[in-house]
Amino acid sequence: MSIKLYELCSADPAHLFSPHCWKTRMSLAHKGLDFETVATPFTGIAGVEGGPARRVPVLRDGETVIEESLEIAKYLDANYPDAPSLLKGEGGAALTELVITWSQTQVHPAVVKLCLMDIFNALAPEDQVFFRATREKAFGKTLEEFQAQFDQNDNSGLVASLLPVELMLKKQPFIGGDTPLFADYVVFGALQWLRTSAPRDVMPKDSAVAGWFERLLDMYDGAGRRVPAAYAA
Amino acid sequence: MSIKLYELCSADPAHLFSPHCWKTRMSLAHKGLDFETVATPFTGIAGVEGGPARRVPVLRDGETVIEESLEIAKYLDANYPDAPSLLKGEGGAALTELVITWSQTQVHPAVVKLCLMDIFNALAPEDQVFFRATREKAFGKTLEEFQAQFDQNDNSGLVASLLPVELMLKKQPFIGGDTPLFADYVVFGALQWLRTSAPRDVMPKDSAVAGWFERLLDMYDGAGRRVPAAYAA
Repeated sequence: MSIKLYELCSADPAHLFSPHCWKTRMSLAHKGLDFETVATPFTGIAGVEGGPARRVPVLRDGETVIEESLEIAKYLDANYPDAPSLLKGEGGAALTELVITWSQTQVHPAVVKLCLMDIFNALAPEDQVFFRATREKAFGKTLEEFQAQFDQNDNSGLVASLLPVELMLKKQPFIGGDTPLFADYVVFGALQWLRTSAPRDVMPKDSAVAGWFERLLDMYDGAGRRVPAAYAA
Repeated sequence: MSIKLYELCSADPAHLFSPHCWKTRMSLAHKGLDFETVATPFTGIAGVEGGPARRVPVLRDGETVIEESLEIAKYLDANYPDAPSLLKGEGGAALTELVITWSQTQVHPAVVKLCLMDIFNALAPEDQVFFRATREKAFGKTLEEFQAQFDQNDNSGLVASLLPVELMLKKQPFIGGDTPLFADYVVFGALQWLRTSAPRDVMPKDSAVAGWFERLLDMYDGAGRRVPAAYAA
């Protein structure tokens, strides 16, 4: 097997929860490509492929090593052109950049409010030290102070952040149109991050976004559904 | 001249302020197509092309009549394939739907807070009656009560709504990549709506979004800049 995917894990190597790694995991499933997972905890990222990766996913395909999920998607489209496209043309590739910054600034913060301590609790002790130091510096407060500001059972902020997708789904079944594209996996990754981290409903069951998420979980022989939903300690 | 564009106007037929019509105005400039404007006030929309249009833009090209700016963009790409593409492939067309719902739910409300009364004041008396009735029903309060909630000189809400574009512009000069696509005009339309309605700065001058907006105003021989900036009464 020539493709190797370095993916973030918690204390359990089978617990794959990173939104960015899920973008690539779904990209490989979309392409129908087999791959070997190298489960990588936070404190293992610096050593990936001899370093100096600062983040995962990192993909090795033969002699090629690529970092960052959109770069990986572009690589896969260029090198596996006979498999279904992930970006479907120049316009699709360009607009994906806006979907990424939108998801990262609107959807990700809403997810973090719902599961920060769940993620922390699932990590190995040395990764907890790393996670606490980096996140507390970013938030300017302790993890516990951050989490205490938000009701983990109130996902109305997440629902609000996804209103553009909810309305878009009145027009077409996927962000990519009739079938999903990498842009779908960008948003899917954010919800899968929550689903794999916290034992709570991700979205109201009667929402169009919930239906879209369930359809994506079912695709590719349930590649997204095979990782159990609730890993929280 | 075979292309006719029905566009929203205020009491002054030269005052073209609709964000949706600007999407099409810029689309035609992008394609290098000449067209004749039919300035249409709110109360004239129902009679466009014999009705029953509920909104503008409406485009007539020879025997073909099309409503709605994305449908018009698709029509132009299909029928003028030798001119630069507006959607650049299936992926670009599909992802544009999300850019539209994002702009409409995040950027448009921020713009309305900054210029609702400016728009109202610029309309002809019969259009003011229509505008007041429809908007007051939607807001559940009078126009004056709505506007009084917001400081028209505080554009921080608009700046915040455009954070995804601000960050995306670190990667590429346009939403469409190296050159603008219809998705750029979707967001441009929202800012042009403000620029043509209210005599105030649209964005902080040192922002990437301001630079992007200025670049678009300059394109196509300044097609966007020719409409004066401040029409407010």
